[in-house]
Parts: sequence; structure tokens; C-alpha cells
Amino acid sequence: MVILKVHGYIQSSAVMRIAACLNEKGLEFEFVPVDMMAGEHKKEPFLSLNPFGQIPVFEDGDLKLFESRAITRYIAHEHANKGTKLITDIPKEMAIISMWMEVETHQFDPLVSKLTYELIFKSKFLGLVTDEAAVKELKTKLAKVLDVYEARLSQSKYLAGDEFTLADLHHLPNLHYLMNTPIKEMFMSHPHFWAWCADILARPSWSNVIKMQN
Amino acid sequence: MVILKVHGYIQSSAVMRIAACLNEKGLEFEFVPVDMMAGEHKKEPFLSLNPFGQIPVFEDGDLKLFESRAITRYIAHEHANKGTKLITDIPKEMAIISMWMEVETHQFDPLVSKLTYELIFKSKFLGLVTDEAAVKELKTKLAKVLDVYEARLSQSKYLAGDEFTLADLHHLPNLHYLMNTPIKEMFMSHPHFWAWCADILARPSWSNVIKMQN
Ligand SMILES: N[C@@H](CCC(=O)N[C@@H](CS)C(=O)NCC(=O)O)C(=O)O
Ligand SMILES: N[C@@H](CCC(=O)N[C@@H](CS)C(=O)NCC(=O)O)C(=O)O
Repeated sequence: MVILKVHGYIQSSAVMRIAACLNEKGLEFEFVPVDMMAGEHKKEPFLSLNPFGQIPVFEDGDLKLFESRAITRYIAHEHANKGTKLITDIPKEMAIISMWMEVETHQFDPLVSKLTYELIFKSKFLGLVTDEAAVKELKTKLAKVLDVYEARLSQSKYLAGDEFTLADLHHLPNLHYLMNTPIKEMFMSHPHFWAWCADILARPSWSNVIKMQN
Repeated sequence: MVILKVHGYIQSSAVMRIAACLNEKGLEFEFVPVDMMAGEHKKEPFLSLNPFGQIPVFEDGDLKLFESRAITRYIAHEHANKGTKLITDIPKEMAIISMWMEVETHQFDPLVSKLTYELIFKSKFLGLVTDEAAVKELKTKLAKVLDVYEARLSQSKYLAGDEFTLADLHHLPNLHYLMNTPIKEMFMSHPHFWAWCADILARPSWSNVIKMQN
């Protein structure tokens, strides 16, 4: 049997996204640590796996993939009949899932990744000071995005409808990190968004990602 | 028969991306102009189509979609048997297409969208001055990305292999715009990248998008 491999480090949002997906599908995988501090990701043999020198990389036998959201899509399609469905074969329904996946990519991630960097990674890992002006501007933009999510999640339990899909799953790492920051208050002031956060962060697939970190 | 509709303005990269996809599939559509200068996209009824207040929006009967890359995916799947294939049903091959679609989104678009803005839109439409320092930094980053594309395109004719797919198509609008800027020289100094540009920009589907603009 082919052993699925995830290369990276387990605090990385993009790695956590793939791990959550593999857990939803009940798939075992081998975790291959990449020593970013030593710059392993910018040297061979890693560059042959991802010429952009970024983690994560996923291996399924001869298939070698980078880009976390392409990897979760592949896992969901290749293992469509295992575990949680996460996608659908019906083009009109899949379109809604894809649309909310793009929303995560273009509207949500750019703001929350920067907030995670400012509010957590800078002080915890890099010994740098948070740029408060940047945080303020990001919060103003995020407030508008959260209003749209709130309206959407007041109509359906999950972003793409009644079922938990890849569109929800892709949000997990950033939601998790921001729970330990003042952004949590912004989340709580949007009740449907907040209920959705609590629901998806409580999934066993996600608890198991957090267990991997400890 | 349902009339497909695209809401937006035809100079928009994201609108051009969808138009190219519809042309590849040989699908007729109605173009619904949105008056951005008058702020139509930030008011009802437009906000009911896209609560983020952005163009394009696509309509296929009851299905209303925003986010250009979700729209092209939907068109490609819903009309899989018409015109150019653009995608595949084989998960391992589709994974490679998806990976290069994500590369366009995360590595290519962030740089070239900003370059298009600095080098074209600012002077042509907004009466603003190009920020030369920003352009210089973007060019340094783009050079590294082009090196990766060059290596890839020296191994296969298109990004995902021997066939033209959505991964290539998504690049068309930004490539087109940058052809009229000094960035063209950077493209030309990467011979396989340059051959790919010339090939995909010469597709009839793309010429027809440009004809729509004139
Ligand atoms: N779009 C990529 C982003 C991957 C990414 O940003 N990886 C970070 C760690 S979380 C990295 O490798 N950074 C090193 C670098 O960019 O040089 C994905 O979703 O996989
Ligand atoms: N990620 C979106 C981007 C759409 C986008 O940026 N649209 C621009 C015009 S090209 C827009 O509507 N801008 C107005 C705004 O953001 O307020 C897509 O691919 O459809």
C-alpha cells in the first residue's frame, strides 16, 4: 500500500488544512518534518518537490503536489467514498462549494493570515513587535467580510449549504489561531458566524490536528 | 433555453477570464454592463448578486455565482462535453490542473495584478502616478516566479501537461495587459514562457474577448 506523505511543519496553517482533510477521510499519513530554520525548503531535494520552496508538499506515490487547496481537492475527489463527503458530483452544487472556497482564498485568508502573523507569529516565533496600525486596518476590512459571512450563515448551517464541505474546512487553521487573539471578540459579535466556528472547530478531525501539535 | 449572463465591465481581468472560458466552450452569453463609476456594484440590486460588491457575477438560470475562478470551473464541469475540455475526470490529472490553478492564484496573480494596476490602470484610467519602487520590488519577485514557469514549460507544452486547460486560461487577462508594458521584456527573456504566452494569446477564444472590448 502506498503511504501518503505530508512534508512541512505542523504549526503551518497550510499543513493543518491538509491534515484536517486527511482526518475527515480517515486516511493515515506519514508526516515528514521540514526544518525551515535551517532553510531546508529552499534547497534540494525539497525544491524538486516544490520549486517555489514552500511547504506543504503532499505525496501519493508518484503524484507530488504542492498548494494546500489543490491537495485537499485531490484528496476529496480521489477518496470520494471514504469518510465525510466534502464535495459533490453535481456541478451546480459543486459550484457553490467552489465559490465559497474562492471566498476563503480571496476575501478571508489575505486578512486573517496577516492578522495571525501580526498577533501571534511575530511575538511568539520571530521576536518582532506587532504593527498596531496594520492590525487596525485589517480589522476594519475583516468586519465587512464577517458581515457577509454572518448573513450567509444565518441562511444555511455551513457555507455551501447543509453539509460541511471543503469550503468550511479550509477556514479551520486561521479560525483556530485567531481564537487566542482579540479577533475572537469580533467573531463572537457575529452570532451565526460564531456558532459555525464553534461547530467546525469541535469536529474530531480538527481535535486530532491539534493533538498532533502537542 | 436559459440565457447565460455575465455582469461586469469588459476591461476587467476577471470578466475577461470568464468570457475566454465561455468562448472555449462555444457558449453564447449576454453581457450585462455594471457602471462601476456610479458605484452600481456597491448598491442593490447588485449586492444581492454578490454581497462583496465585486464584479463579475455569472447567472445560469437560478444559479448565481461570483468569483471568476469558481465560475470557470463550473462552466468547464457543467459543459464538459462541449468545445475544449479544459479539465479532466481523472483525479490524479485534475490534481495537476488544480495545482497550477492555485499557482496562478497565489504566486502569479498577486504580482501581475499589482503590476497591471501600477503600469496601466493608474495612468490610463485613474490619472495617478506609477510607484516605481513598488514596480521594482514586484519585478524582482516576478523574475523568480517566471524562472519556475520557464522550467515547467520546458518540460510540457502547457502548465498541466500536453493540453490547454483552465490553469493556462486563467493567466490570459494579466498576460494580455502586461504585453503593452516593459514586463513584456521579462516574458521574452524566458523562451519557453514566451512561446506559451504567444500560443495561448493566439487562441480564437481570446481574440474574441479582445474583439468584445473594441
Ligand atoms: N498557497 C500555499 C501557501 C504555502 C505557504 O505559505 N507556506 C509557508 C508556510 S505556512 C512557507 O512555506 N513559507 C516559506 C516561504 O514562502 O518562503 C499553500 O496553500 O500551500
Ligand atoms: N477574486 C475576484 C476578484 C474580482 C475583482 O477584483 N473585481 C474587481 C474588478 S476586476 C472589482 O469588482 N472591484 C471593486 C471592488 O473590489 O470594490 C474574482 O476573481 O472574481
